[in-house]
Formats: sequence, C-alpha cells, structure tokens
Amino acid sequence: MDTLTQYLNDHPHDELHPSEIANILKDLNEKSFREALQAIPRELIADVALELPDRYFEDIVESFTTKEIADSVAELESDDQTDFMQELEEVDSSMAKAVFSQLDEDDQADILKLKQYDDDIAGAYMQVEVYTANLHDTVHDVIRQFAKLRRNDELENVNYLFVTDEKHHLRYGIGLDHLLVFNFDQTLEENINENPEKYKPVMGYDSDDISDIVQKFQEYDLSSMPIIDEKGMLLGRITSDDIYDIINEQATDQMYHLAGVNDDAEEDEDIFKAGKSRAVWLGVNLITAITASLVIGLFEDTLQSIVALAILMPIVASMGGNAGTQSLTVVVRQLALGDIAQHDAFRTIRKEVILSLANGFLFAIIMGIIASIWFDKGMLGIVIALSMVINLLSAGFFGAMVPLLLKKMEVDPAIGSTVVLTTVTDVVGFFSFLGLATLILL
Amino acid sequence: MDTLTQYLNDHPHDELHPSEIANILKDLNEKSFREALQAIPRELIADVALELPDRYFEDIVESFTTKEIADSVAELESDDQTDFMQELEEVDSSMAKAVFSQLDEDDQADILKLKQYDDDIAGAYMQVEVYTANLHDTVHDVIRQFAKLRRNDELENVNYLFVTDEKHHLRYGIGLDHLLVFNFDQTLEENINENPEKYKPVMGYDSDDISDIVQKFQEYDLSSMPIIDEKGMLLGRITSDDIYDIINEQATDQMYHLAGVNDDAEEDEDIFKAGKSRAVWLGVNLITAITASLVIGLFEDTLQSIVALAILMPIVASMGGNAGTQSLTVVVRQLALGDIAQHDAFRTIRKEVILSLANGFLFAIIMGIIASIWFDKGMLGIVIALSMVINLLSAGFFGAMVPLLLKKMEVDPAIGSTVVLTTVTDVVGFFSFLGLATLILL
Repeated sequence: MDTLTQYLNDHPHDELHPSEIANILKDLNEKSFREALQAIPRELIADVALELPDRYFEDIVESFTTKEIADSVAELESDDQTDFMQELEEVDSSMAKAVFSQLDEDDQADILKLKQYDDDIAGAYMQVEVYTANLHDTVHDVIRQFAKLRRNDELENVNYLFVTDEKHHLRYGIGLDHLLVFNFDQTLEENINENPEKYKPVMGYDSDDISDIVQKFQEYDLSSMPIIDEKGMLLGRITSDDIYDIINEQATDQMYHLAGVNDDAEEDEDIFKAGKSRAVWLGVNLITAITASLVIGLFEDTLQSIVALAILMPIVASMGGNAGTQSLTVVVRQLALGDIAQHDAFRTIRKEVILSLANGFLFAIIMGIIASIWFDKGMLGIVIALSMVINLLSAGFFGAMVPLLLKKMEVDPAIGSTVVLTTVTDVVGFFSFLGLATLILL
Repeated sequence: MDTLTQYLNDHPHDELHPSEIANILKDLNEKSFREALQAIPRELIADVALELPDRYFEDIVESFTTKEIADSVAELESDDQTDFMQELEEVDSSMAKAVFSQLDEDDQADILKLKQYDDDIAGAYMQVEVYTANLHDTVHDVIRQFAKLRRNDELENVNYLFVTDEKHHLRYGIGLDHLLVFNFDQTLEENINENPEKYKPVMGYDSDDISDIVQKFQEYDLSSMPIIDEKGMLLGRITSDDIYDIINEQATDQMYHLAGVNDDAEEDEDIFKAGKSRAVWLGVNLITAITASLVIGLFEDTLQSIVALAILMPIVASMGGNAGTQSLTVVVRQLALGDIAQHDAFRTIRKEVILSLANGFLFAIIMGIIASIWFDKGMLGIVIALSMVINLLSAGFFGAMVPLLLKKMEVDPAIGSTVVLTTVTDVVGFFSFLGLATLILL
C-alpha cells in the first residue's frame, strides 16, 4: 500500500492512469490489496477493475457501495461500461441490477444495445462514442463543436471525423491529419469533393465476425474503424486497443485448444469449472489411450516372448507423438495467420511428409543402433528402425492433414486435432513396432 | 490473373491497396502468380512483397529489374524499407547491394541506422517519419508546414504532433484531436502551458525490449508511441499496426516453443533449416524417451511375469503427459499475459495441484474399474488407480512449477518446459505403475 500511496501522491489527479494503479495492486498480497483499494480515487474503481485479471473483480466490487460503483461506471466509455456490467452480472446479479438502475438513461440504453451482441461479433466490441459531423457543416463549426465535446470530456482518443448524411448513414471518414489541412471556411462537402475517393472509410458491420474485423485492421493498418448496421447507419467504432486484446485472446484460444483446455473455464473464479473442462478432455484422451492399449493387447504373446519390446515400445510412440505435434502446431498456426490456405494443402502436406521422412530416417538409424547394442540383438534394431520411419511418416502426414481437413469442414483446426493425432501416432507406433517384431523376430 | 486485372480496373490508382493485391495473388497457382506479378503497378511491388508470406519474396524480386525494385522501395516508409532490404539481403545479397545503391541518400542513411538494432529491440520496429514542431511555432505555422508535407506525400497516418526543443529532444505529444481545438494564433508553448501535464507523452527508448513497448501500448491504449534515445532525442515512432504484428509473432513463438519448433526456421525457404531445428528437439525427446525406457527396464522381471502391465502402462504415462500439458500451457500463457506473476507462484501451484488431484482421483477410479474388469484382476485395478493419482498429481505440480522456475531464472518459460515435463510424467508414470505392481502383485 505504500507503493500505491506513493504513486497517488506523485501524480496529480489528471494523470492517474488505471493500468498503472492496477499494476501496483497486482503485486500486493490479499490483505494489503484490500487496504489499498480504499485509497483509489472513487471514479477510477471500475476502470481499475477492468484492468486487473478477472479473479480480482469480485473483491473489488464487494469493497465499495453501489453508488460508488455506479458513479465510476458512468466515467467509462460505452464498450467498457458494457464489459463491466456483464462481468458484474456474472459475479453478483442483484448488485448489477442496483448499479444499472443508478446509471443515467443514455448509458443504460447504450449498454442494453451493446449487450445484445454475441461474444464473437463485432458489435460486442464497439463503443458508441464517435466524432461525427454533417456534410454541410463548415470545418469551423465542426471544430467548435468538437471543442465543446472535449470540454465536457465526452470524447477521447479521436483519430477520425466520421461524416454522415441526414439519415445518419456513414458517408466518409476524415483522418484528423487530413481535417487539419482543410479549408476551414468551406463545408466538409466542398473540401471532400476535391478528391472524394480518398475519404471512403474502411468499415465493418456490427454483425461481422470479430476475426474479420481484426483481419481488416491488420491488412489496412488501421487504428480505428467505424461500425455500421446493415442499412449503413453509423453505430460506433472499434479502436486499436480492442484489437490488441482480441489478437491475444485468439492466440490464447488456439494454444489452449491444442492442449485441451478452455479459456473461459480457466479464467473462472470457480475452480470446478476448469476441472470439469479439463476432465472432459482427459476423458477423451483416456479413450485414445485405451484404444492404443487394445492394439498392444493384440500382441500379448509377442510381448510375453520378448520383454525388450515392452521396454522399447514407448520410444516409438513418443517420437511419433512429438513429431506429429511439431507438424500440427505449425500447420494450425499458419492456417490461423493466413500464411497458408486451402489450395496450399498439397504443398503443405508434401513439406511435412518430407520433413518427417528425413527425421524418421535419421532417428531410425540412431535408435536402431542404440537398440541393437542395448539388447545385443541386431534384428531388434532393424525392427525399431523400420517402425520409427513408419510412425514419423504418418505423424507428419496426419499432423498436416487433420487441421487442413478440419478447416475444410469449417471446424476450428485447433480443436480436436491433437487427440486425433495422438490416436494415430500411438496406434500406428505400437502396431508397426509390435507387428514388425512379431513378423521378424518370432 | 483475371481477378487481379478486374481489381486493377475497378480501382483508381490512388485506391489500390497492397494488402488487397496480396490477397488476390495468394490465391493463384504458381504460373498465374508469375503472370499476375507483371500487372502490378510498379511502385507497389515492394509493399505487396511485404504483405505476402515470406515464401513469395524470392519469386517477386526475381521478376523485376533492380531499378523497378529500388523505385518501389523508395515509396515505403523507413521501417518497411528496412524490413524489405533485410529480407532482400537474405534472399539475394548482390541484388540487395544494387538496389541499395539506387536509393537516395536520406533513405540509405535511415536504413543503415535502423538495421543496427537487434530483432527484439524497439529501434528495429520504428519508422523515422514523425510529425514534429518546435515549442515556439504558432499553430498556424505548424498546420501550414503539415499541409506542405502532406502534398509531398511525406507523412501518413499521423495521430500525434511531437513537440521538440532546440536540441531535438522530445518535450510533448499533442494528439491531433487536441491540436484541433488549440488557439491557432498562439504558439504551441502558450497553448500547452494551460495544462502541460496533459501533453506529457508515453515514450519508449530505442533500446527497450519490444515486449515492454507492446505492454505499454496495451496498458495505455496507444495507437502510436514516440521513440527516443538515451539522451531524450526523438528518433521515430512505432504505430499500432506494428503492434498487431508483434503480438501475433510473440504468440506464435510461444506456441512453437511449447511444441519444440522454431519460427524463423519454419519460415525459411530452405526446408533443411526447419528439418534441422525440429531434429534437435526430437533428439532431446529421444533422450527423454530412452530415460523412461531405462526406468521400465528396471522392472524387466515384473513385466515378464505380468504381460498385462505392458499393455496398460502407456495409459498412465499418456494421461500424465496430457494433464501435465494442460497445466503447463495455462501457466505459460498466463505468465506471458501478465495474469500471474512471481508472487502468485504459491497460489498457482496450489490451484494446479488441486485440479490434478481431483482429476487424478476421478480417472483413478474409472481406470481402476476398467483394468480390473479387462484383466479380471482386482489388485491390478488398485495398482493402476494408485499410480494414476501419483502421476497426475506430479504432472500438475511440475506443469506449474517448471515454467515458474524458468521465469524466475529469467528463461522463457515456453522453451524447454515441455521436455522437462514429459520426462517427469513418463518416468513417474512408469516408475509408480511398475513399482507398485512389483510391490503389490508379485
């Protein structure tokens, strides 16, 4: 708490930044944290709550009155207001109702509107605060209007002036760097007409998938994008800071899916949700493992005869699993980043097969020699070498094939591909190794 | 190529966007691609080359003359110029020298300066083009100057005016939304002095780690950041589009490291590099697998007596590996996102241990029952149940411990943690299962 008091003393009120406060709070233990909360300027509570990881949220809202929270929510922009209220509903729905009722009508209307969008739709990420003007306004008028809005602290981080017509349809987007050099005495329309094509904005629909929006941000190097409805009416905007968060979330989802973990479940305060989600995945893996064991069971007699096989067989399966994971991870990620597409399928599979074959031969030789020496049995070396090549080859092939197939079936390639791959590499690994051993050594 | 011709016809010259051209080209097969290249407006070549995945780069530069390439490089901003030239050097160093010599002196100087920075340092990502003005300039002068620069197409996507003193040290950053409402007849200094704290910019040093820069962008919701040297002199800026790319790269690195794959090697045209990088990792895994097999070898006699053990033992190891991967992935990612930190170590490990213990008991019961029925041996069920609990518990514990330890040793938690974890779960899995079997069943 000393650090927080120090920080609050060092910075005049205007300069306090919620993320800096959040960083200081994150480092405190539970007791100091609760004490420190009371030192936060009340209007920053909601902002700080949003900056901290989810698990702090409940502690924060329990430490303040409904009015204090409502007042700080009023300070947020509409997208953050909606996020905060949605979080609050999950944590304490009666408090959420109480806070909501204390917000002013405009805020309430905005939140209700934004709440309607599903989590992966553009509308869920937009804020309604945009800087707009009419085609027939002069630049002078526009600036005077803007100065008034700024004095009331109603607009922040504005990069674009959006020009709408009488029906509030979005017509043009003028970067402030362009506006600055307009003829201030003329209307927007007169200025724009010198080169109207230049001011056609890159827009998104509120119903678009947020991934498409993110892609447009990256392709057009945007820092802000207007969002319209299907009639072309301007609804709000999405800004670069939203995009940073979404890119991170998308990457987290991919990593988690490959490992059989669910992002929402892991973030939940209730540890039972994470446990349940992981259990489902482990359950599927158990079925995979039992399947592989059934394959081993086919060769019970072989194993009885040559114990060395039981000692060596996990090596083949393990190498297959690792090589397959390498191929799988690369293909899943490149598909996600748009580096490869459907029509690259043949080239991708070919590359993975070549790589696996090459490494397959390399480790076949290495392991073949080791096995022969270890068990003083040359043919055992041959068996393990052959199955190593077979298993790594199929690992590479399926590691590339499975995500490409899933993508073609319009399923997220990261979901389920790992379990399909492990089934293949385990089954192929054990079957080829024990099968060849039965053929060659018995 | 029809699609490209159509696109080029539909859009006036000013509106052609390199990323749209790149998207069209990506969908063509090799032959159509080479034909289509010739239809691209020459000044966009370099930009299009940067928008396409790395593997297209060589084809593109081989299809144009040195002069055509040099002219298109001149159209780029300094950070893109540097990226292009570095890529060109890797692909064809003599052509790179030739192109470089045809650039004008200023561009050459900028590129040489930016090239010096290592890949993960802020300076490597900055562009030198910034909109600056002096404290004593009037706002009118500043705007007139800006209009001139714009007419020469020298500045794009400007959100901030950076105010420097006589020694070119950065003093203030004025968002254009603030500049717009300044008193145009007064100087910048006079306008600023009404509330100087408001215009203190969030800056980065050219020597900063780029991850710190990215974190600042996310914490302060920036769309642009000025970069200064250790003396405070303004060198350039980093913009939000750079940050999108870097966030994606960082996530890719994490995913790849967990799978034992290297980003640069995979991107390389030379498939041998990817193969070699994967082989190193597979080699380490081979050592891990042999270690586990040595553990199995300790129980040769036990396996000889009870073949059922050979059939079931991969199940325990596999479940441990999967559960450990779940813990590992979550902890690595949360560390990277800053959701957990060093002092959260105890809480994190405790959570992972609880989750693993719970799932350990669940699957111990399930697998215990299955094993007893399968082999008609109740004690076998007990053995596998006990070792399942032990292995999942250690999987969860080490899955959390290893990345936290690596982080404390200031090593990237994603590198090497997978192989340590698999060693643990394999060794503990086989040892506990076969050991308990030896104790209880023999």
